[in-house]
Amino acid sequence: MTNSEAGRTSIRGRRPGAPDTRAQILASARALFASRGFGSTSVRAIAADAHVDPSLVHHYFGSKDDLFVAALELPVDPRVVIQPVLEGDLEGAGERLLRVFLSVWDDEKARLPLLGLVRGVVDPKGQQFVRDGLLGMVLGPIGPAFHLDEPQRRMALVASQMIGLVMLRYVLEVEPLASMETDLVVATYAPTLQRYLAGPLPAS
Amino acid sequence: MTNSEAGRTSIRGRRPGAPDTRAQILASARALFASRGFGSTSVRAIAADAHVDPSLVHHYFGSKDDLFVAALELPVDPRVVIQPVLEGDLEGAGERLLRVFLSVWDDEKARLPLLGLVRGVVDPKGQQFVRDGLLGMVLGPIGPAFHLDEPQRRMALVASQMIGLVMLRYVLEVEPLASMETDLVVATYAPTLQRYLAGPLPAS
Repeated sequence: MTNSEAGRTSIRGRRPGAPDTRAQILASARALFASRGFGSTSVRAIAADAHVDPSLVHHYFGSKDDLFVAALELPVDPRVVIQPVLEGDLEGAGERLLRVFLSVWDDEKARLPLLGLVRGVVDPKGQQFVRDGLLGMVLGPIGPAFHLDEPQRRMALVASQMIGLVMLRYVLEVEPLASMETDLVVATYAPTLQRYLAGPLPAS
Repeated sequence: MTNSEAGRTSIRGRRPGAPDTRAQILASARALFASRGFGSTSVRAIAADAHVDPSLVHHYFGSKDDLFVAALELPVDPRVVIQPVLEGDLEGAGERLLRVFLSVWDDEKARLPLLGLVRGVVDPKGQQFVRDGLLGMVLGPIGPAFHLDEPQRRMALVASQMIGLVMLRYVLEVEPLASMETDLVVATYAPTLQRYLAGPLPAS
C-alpha cells in the first residue's frame, strides 16, 4: 500500500501517513482486546477507538485474528502451528500437540518473545496470550476438528498442563525438566494430554 | 522473650528492641533466599547480613524452614499441610495431594496471599515460593516418605500440573475450571498426579 491510500481514510485531522495510523490501530487493538477480551472486541470498535475507517484495519492487518497475532507480536502464527495437530487421527493428537508446542518453545527466536508474554501472565497482554492465543487460536480448533464432547472443559485441562510445563521448563527452568530431551518430554506428557483431549471425563 | 534478651545479642550499636531486629533478619533472609536460593543460604549468612548473632535468628524464628515460611509470609505451613499426604498408602497419594492443595487454595484467606506470590512467579519471591516452597517443602518430603525412584523428576512433573492448575483455575479463572466443584477437580487431576508420583516413567 502507499501513504496516499492510508491518507484517504484517515480522519479528524490526523496527518496522512502509514506508520502512525498502523501504530494507532495496534494500540487500540491491544487496549480493547485487553479490556474487553478478544471475543467481545469488534474490528469496528477498534477502528472507532483509533479514529480510522474499519476498512483501513482490514487493509493493514487482514482479519481480526491477524490483528491479534500482530497486536501480541507473536513470533509464530498459532493458526499455522496447530495445523499438523488437526491433520491426523485423534489417537495421536496429544503427542502431535506436544511436538508442535515444544518445537516452538525450544526455538530460541520464538521462545524469548513468548516468555515475555507468559512472564506477564497477570498483565492484560499475558492473559490475552493464554486466553485468546493458547485457548482460542491454538486449542480452539481442536474440538471442532475431532468433534469432541465438552471442548471447553477439555481444552482448559489441556491448557493447564501446557502452561504448567512452560512454567517449570522455560520460566523457572526446574531440572530435570529444563534440560530434558524433547522426545522424553513428549513421552512423559502425551498420555496426560491425550486423556484430557479424548479420554473419559469424570461426571460432575 | 523480652527486649533485654534481644538487646544482649544485638551488635554494632543497633538499639536493643525486638521489632527492628526481627524485621532486619526477615529482610536479610528474603534478600539472601532470593539471590542465593534457599538451599545455599545458611542461618549464619543471614545473621551476618543482618548484623546479629546466629542464635538470635533461631531465637526469633526457630529453624531455617520456619524462617522461610515467615519470610514469604505463607498463610499456611507447608510442612503441616503435607502431613495427610504422607500418612497413607502410595496408591491414594495423588488424590490426597490434590485435596490438601485445593483445601488451601479454595480458602480465600489463604488464596489471596498465595496469589500474590504466584502472580510474581518471575520475581524472586514468587520463584522462591515455587522452587523452595512447593518443590522443596510441600513436595520434597513425598519422595523419601514413599521411597520413590527419581523423586526430583517426579516432583517436577507433579509441580508442572499443580502450577498449571493454579494458573487456569485461580489466576486466569478460566471456565469451567474456575468454578468446578472440588470433587470434580480431584477426579480429573488425581490420575495425572498419581501417574507422575508412582507410575512408570518413560526411559530417557
